[in-house]
Amino acid sequence: MAEGRCAHLVLGGARSGKSAFAEAQALAAGDVGRWVYVATARAQDSEMQDRIDRHRARRDPRWETVEAPLDLAAALARHDAPGTCVLVDCLTLWLTNALTEDCWPAEREALLTAVAASRARLLLVSNEVGSGVVPMGALSRTFVDEAGRLHQRLAATCARVTLVVAGLPTTLKDDCP
Amino acid sequence: MAEGRCAHLVLGGARSGKSAFAEAQALAAGDVGRWVYVATARAQDSEMQDRIDRHRARRDPRWETVEAPLDLAAALARHDAPGTCVLVDCLTLWLTNALTEDCWPAEREALLTAVAASRARLLLVSNEVGSGVVPMGALSRTFVDEAGRLHQRLAATCARVTLVVAGLPTTLKDDCP
Amino acid sequence: MAEGRCAHLVLGGARSGKSAFAEAQALAAGDVGRWVYVATARAQDSEMQDRIDRHRARRDPRWETVEAPLDLAAALARHDAPGTCVLVDCLTLWLTNALTEDCWPAEREALLTAVAASRARLLLVSNEVGSGVVPMGALSRTFVDEAGRLHQRLAATCARVTLVVAGLPTTLKDDCP
Repeated sequence: MAEGRCAHLVLGGARSGKSAFAEAQALAAGDVGRWVYVATARAQDSEMQDRIDRHRARRDPRWETVEAPLDLAAALARHDAPGTCVLVDCLTLWLTNALTEDCWPAEREALLTAVAASRARLLLVSNEVGSGVVPMGALSRTFVDEAGRLHQRLAATCARVTLVVAGLPTTLKDDCP
Repeated sequence: MAEGRCAHLVLGGARSGKSAFAEAQALAAGDVGRWVYVATARAQDSEMQDRIDRHRARRDPRWETVEAPLDLAAALARHDAPGTCVLVDCLTLWLTNALTEDCWPAEREALLTAVAASRARLLLVSNEVGSGVVPMGALSRTFVDEAGRLHQRLAATCARVTLVVAGLPTTLKDDCP
Repeated sequence: MAEGRCAHLVLGGARSGKSAFAEAQALAAGDVGRWVYVATARAQDSEMQDRIDRHRARRDPRWETVEAPLDLAAALARHDAPGTCVLVDCLTLWLTNALTEDCWPAEREALLTAVAASRARLLLVSNEVGSGVVPMGALSRTFVDEAGRLHQRLAATCARVTLVVAGLPTTLKDDCP
């Protein structure tokens, strides 16, 4: 089987509707009997906790929620059976966590391997962050660079890539059989 | 009649050519005998006044200009006759005004109702602001979130949605009969 | 011959894969026997020098490298023969240099003339910077405005315009014969 043959990368700006699009895709998928939602957010302050709570309340009850702010590859490996749909929301929060904890290269390579190896149906949601002015801080520039490079590598591996703008999907790649 | 059956949401980044595209669409529309330009900008400083003046000078003389920094729904209701083309430029300035004046939820709901009710041909221009790094300030984050949510709701209501990049339109939705 | 008949504008966010896309397009082009890479970067600090070195090391050995942080039109005029492919990477760094040196209008007009006059195959790479929050500083706003206006004018002149997201190209315009 080809690498990442069932993986779908869903990109979009902030509040673009990318998560809702990915969830709808997941619940409409055939041959799926189990839905695993992998949340990468860390509730470090009340604003973020509010966002997490709102997202969780909005989700269909069929979702099991797994938290993986780090070691995302291990979460994918634990839920890689055929018939499982795994939605990761979102990669940019996980990237932020890994940069903060200084473990990004190892996290990244493990994730790319796990995506290619998974037999589950994967939906990977990530934020487009590179189309504004390049930020002044070195950490923000690293974040933009690493997000962009990750998206390129995942887009090469995934069978499908979709860009969501105002809740509307544009197909950037569709190699699904 | 379907909701927002003649409404067209035009999205684009800063200086993407979205206003010029929307104006050209308006002036080329059939069955239109009156053109109303709804300007939402507030001239709070000389830089903004320069922008307003440049925009106005560039516009075709067929346009009547109406200013509506707030109470945008009322402006649409006053100009909702069939045969009228109403161009709102732009929604993100209006959002900024409403957040500043602390009346955003009421403004937003009234606008969504007015768009669905209007019998005029509507062109709604708005800035894509969510594809850069999420800004540090809480107010900027609220702005990005509310702009994104508004675009999703309007995109669901409008019959057409276009993204303009470098002056070139990409159709995201076209349900026009 | 039509203006800019062989020119191709390649837009994309930071780390979108726009340079790699443009280089691949250049090397795959038929009827080309010489490849000129016009680098506009200025190594003002070690971070930028690292980026320049990485880019140069990644490039195919067929490329001759020319440096043109300013006077970009002259660089195009020196390499405008048919059978030459000229890749400029990137326009936004050149814009930054010209704004810093206070010579932007003259640089811009000369470049637009040179693009229209060139008989070489041109690939012009530039950063999409206008889809984030409008920055606070006046210089950053000028940068965003001028980048957007330049992209509009070049997109009107060039025969092809491509937007690259996550390494994947979307065609915005293709008037090539």
